[in-house]
Amino acid sequence: MPPTDRFVATAQFHVRYAETDAQGVVHHASYVIWLEEARLNYARVRGRDYAEIERAGIFMSVIGVEIRYRAAAHFGDYITVHCWLDEVKSRTMAFGYEVMVGDRLCATARTDSICITREGKVTVWPKFMSEWYGNQP
Amino acid sequence: MPPTDRFVATAQFHVRYAETDAQGVVHHASYVIWLEEARLNYARVRGRDYAEIERAGIFMSVIGVEIRYRAAAHFGDYITVHCWLDEVKSRTMAFGYEVMVGDRLCATARTDSICITREGKVTVWPKFMSEWYGNQP
Amino acid sequence: MPPTDRFVATAQFHVRYAETDAQGVVHHASYVIWLEEARLNYARVRGRDYAEIERAGIFMSVIGVEIRYRAAAHFGDYITVHCWLDEVKSRTMAFGYEVMVGDRLCATARTDSICITREGKVTVWPKFMSEWYGNQP
Amino acid sequence: MPPTDRFVATAQFHVRYAETDAQGVVHHASYVIWLEEARLNYARVRGRDYAEIERAGIFMSVIGVEIRYRAAAHFGDYITVHCWLDEVKSRTMAFGYEVMVGDRLCATARTDSICITREGKVTVWPKFMSEWYGNQP
Repeated sequence: MPPTDRFVATAQFHVRYAETDAQGVVHHASYVIWLEEARLNYARVRGRDYAEIERAGIFMSVIGVEIRYRAAAHFGDYITVHCWLDEVKSRTMAFGYEVMVGDRLCATARTDSICITREGKVTVWPKFMSEWYGNQP
Repeated sequence: MPPTDRFVATAQFHVRYAETDAQGVVHHASYVIWLEEARLNYARVRGRDYAEIERAGIFMSVIGVEIRYRAAAHFGDYITVHCWLDEVKSRTMAFGYEVMVGDRLCATARTDSICITREGKVTVWPKFMSEWYGNQP
Repeated sequence: MPPTDRFVATAQFHVRYAETDAQGVVHHASYVIWLEEARLNYARVRGRDYAEIERAGIFMSVIGVEIRYRAAAHFGDYITVHCWLDEVKSRTMAFGYEVMVGDRLCATARTDSICITREGKVTVWPKFMSEWYGNQP
Repeated sequence: MPPTDRFVATAQFHVRYAETDAQGVVHHASYVIWLEEARLNYARVRGRDYAEIERAGIFMSVIGVEIRYRAAAHFGDYITVHCWLDEVKSRTMAFGYEVMVGDRLCATARTDSICITREGKVTVWPKFMSEWYGNQP
């Protein structure tokens, strides 16, 4: 269950046929793309398009991914990904995720990101991003 | 059959599991990636690493793809892609391809590329690239 | 422009970050996935979920892809793909496509599909699919 | 550093252009595909092609992925992935990984797999696979 005291953004989309594999299920690497979709949707729902964030010279770079797969997803399934901010430090940001098909939990996940400049230097998060953590809309 | 009067570069690799789909065969989009592998291998065999070509400010941009699928490829198959230069004009370059599994022809293809500068302007091919056409090593 | 005398289904989605490449634009292979999304959306809009079609033992297999790229798409772009049935014969079906970002035409495309059984045998299209061609909703 | 008391299989390949993203580096999801390549290469080096393993009705299903990204990889890089068996229990198997570009460590990773039958039931590993752990060739 997503935390009840945190802002949770929900992304939804169909499974793409190309995301399946010869075992007849969604390939486990496809979830990493879905987490990114959910994370960028989080920014969008918070009022910031990530494309604009990058144009302003702020780049989120993923430094860690952890996924636990609980149940398979299939072509034809409609995917729901709940995404929330799990932890924010000056230079790192962790998102939590739940990947669902209806009531069925398919995966839980966490990603860690750092903030880098256009020149590739690690820097602190801009205020509007670090405030995502506490700010309950 | 690849043309006998043209230089033909051959790329080989295993099918990746993630390239398959729920029909149990290689997904048709995976071939587009394989053609790119074969095209960049062509440059490499001709003595030029494409990464270096881009560092010199020359970017190949694909403007057309045509693929005819003849037979399915499967996980476990070892893929051979023959690639040759089909046509070179001052501003366009067409590669031809055959995708094989052993003696079995899985697909034939053609891609068209243009040459663009770092600023995104269309330009003529550098001499060393346009010479690929006639120059039989 | 999509044909005015044919049913046109429109699929829309954001560019995914993973669909871009080091040239800063959407990689040309990503369009093949988008065409599939548009084609399966066409079936859905016509009242048939492709997952159900497969469960009934009917498999669409792509035997040809042709794409002409006109303008680059970028992360942050919202993609519209118009998709229509271009030609239907007893054993082949051709879809036409236009990939747009707003008013900008990014690509035109055509794919050819055949109908295969669960055993992998080529067969004729079921009536409800071949009727898609003439039937204007 | 890979463990010195364990069998380590090494897979090598070029970065594919399609694996890069608009930040100019390899997209973090591409590593998940590379880990799979390294894992299937491990089986191959151990004398078993994974395609044959599946034909025998044994399916490895990934239930967990953890990756720590240490340094970016770029188009033009030649990737080396060291892969070893980290832990084997009757029903789970954990692989460890190091992703290198030359002497530079780009990522460390671990995946957990379970063994499933053709019918999708969890089962114990076949003897030849569980013996991979202790058996030093």
